[in-house]
Amino acid sequence: MSAIRVPVVEKIFSANDRIANQNKTLMAENNVYAINIMASPGAGKTSFILQTIKRLQSEFMIGVIEGDTAPVTIDSDKVIAAGMPAVQINTGGDCHLDAVMMSEGLNQLPLADLDVVIVENVGNLICPAAFDLGTNINLLIASVPEGDDKPYKYPNIYRGLDILIINKIDLEPYVQFDMDYFTHGVQLLNPGLTTFPVSCRTEEGFEPWIDWLRAEILKAKQG
Amino acid sequence: MSAIRVPVVEKIFSANDRIANQNKTLMAENNVYAINIMASPGAGKTSFILQTIKRLQSEFMIGVIEGDTAPVTIDSDKVIAAGMPAVQINTGGDCHLDAVMMSEGLNQLPLADLDVVIVENVGNLICPAAFDLGTNINLLIASVPEGDDKPYKYPNIYRGLDILIINKIDLEPYVQFDMDYFTHGVQLLNPGLTTFPVSCRTEEGFEPWIDWLRAEILKAKQG
Repeated sequence: MSAIRVPVVEKIFSANDRIANQNKTLMAENNVYAINIMASPGAGKTSFILQTIKRLQSEFMIGVIEGDTAPVTIDSDKVIAAGMPAVQINTGGDCHLDAVMMSEGLNQLPLADLDVVIVENVGNLICPAAFDLGTNINLLIASVPEGDDKPYKYPNIYRGLDILIINKIDLEPYVQFDMDYFTHGVQLLNPGLTTFPVSCRTEEGFEPWIDWLRAEILKAKQG
Repeated sequence: MSAIRVPVVEKIFSANDRIANQNKTLMAENNVYAINIMASPGAGKTSFILQTIKRLQSEFMIGVIEGDTAPVTIDSDKVIAAGMPAVQINTGGDCHLDAVMMSEGLNQLPLADLDVVIVENVGNLICPAAFDLGTNINLLIASVPEGDDKPYKYPNIYRGLDILIINKIDLEPYVQFDMDYFTHGVQLLNPGLTTFPVSCRTEEGFEPWIDWLRAEILKAKQG
């Protein structure tokens, strides 16, 4: 079975990469900087996006693509309530966004008016890692109550990251989470990975992330 | 593309169901009661299994099949340290266990000596829901810090459940979690679903779950 299966998977991946490159070109033509946000269910993707929008919406126009496995618009509604355009992609039960879905999402956004597109991928630590969307960066949100062993158990998603956010640091006193053990695991997989610890609830830790992101957006616009 | 894809998926599912039925027969012949435990990464599957073993190991022999996406034996080591046999299945990056992997796991366990097999599925709220393993029950562990909107966002996994555990109830004072909203979502998808709120950390709430499970194991042995 595996002898039949591997070539099929490779074919899908290369088709995905072709579309991802088209997405990348389209966004570059429109001067749009894009972020693919991945995480477990409930790590705080939507809250993190809303906190980021709040801090940058006076400087940049930000659109959001919301990936959901079901036709619920809970997250998209929150983004629209925050005053930014959002598109919901219902994967129909699929466990990740792919470059084709991303392309469909981009077609629904007013790209020429946007500076940034944030993609909220489906909540899943495994499958989204295998599908490039064409974004400038891949970002993972880990969260303290998930536990400190996640890099060891879900290594693939850590390997492909550009940015790691550690959310819910306000819960550290109430759960068992050894930051050194967690960080050691991350460093084994992705040495030097830029990491920002934050709490979306208490709003601590956001300034360094926002400063980093602002600089990246401006650099991409110049470059 | 979808016209080509759907029949292939159906074929895989029916092959999976065939093997799942063989697993069910094998376990029934050995008087083994089996539980498929699903959850997001970090909801507390391993802790829940260890708490359950601790409370039942004087009455029953319990074997564990640990599904992991990577060759790490963190969870299996904990079960073996608790004095019970464990088998690790490394899915090689795959996002769920299927009935074939389950069958391979069962072949590695001393089934004739066991009363119970607990399967720790891969941490994922989407893909495991589609693959029957042949267990007596499908159990989901939700956890309070994941948020109260998960039934609305990941409905498929809630639809096929026999038991719902709500873990980390000790964190309720520190996070936003509306139990009524969560429960309403669950009831829409799976009316009357038997639910046990627990905390693996403080160990509260375990008695009703253990009483329920003990009765089910004994009933299956008699029937």
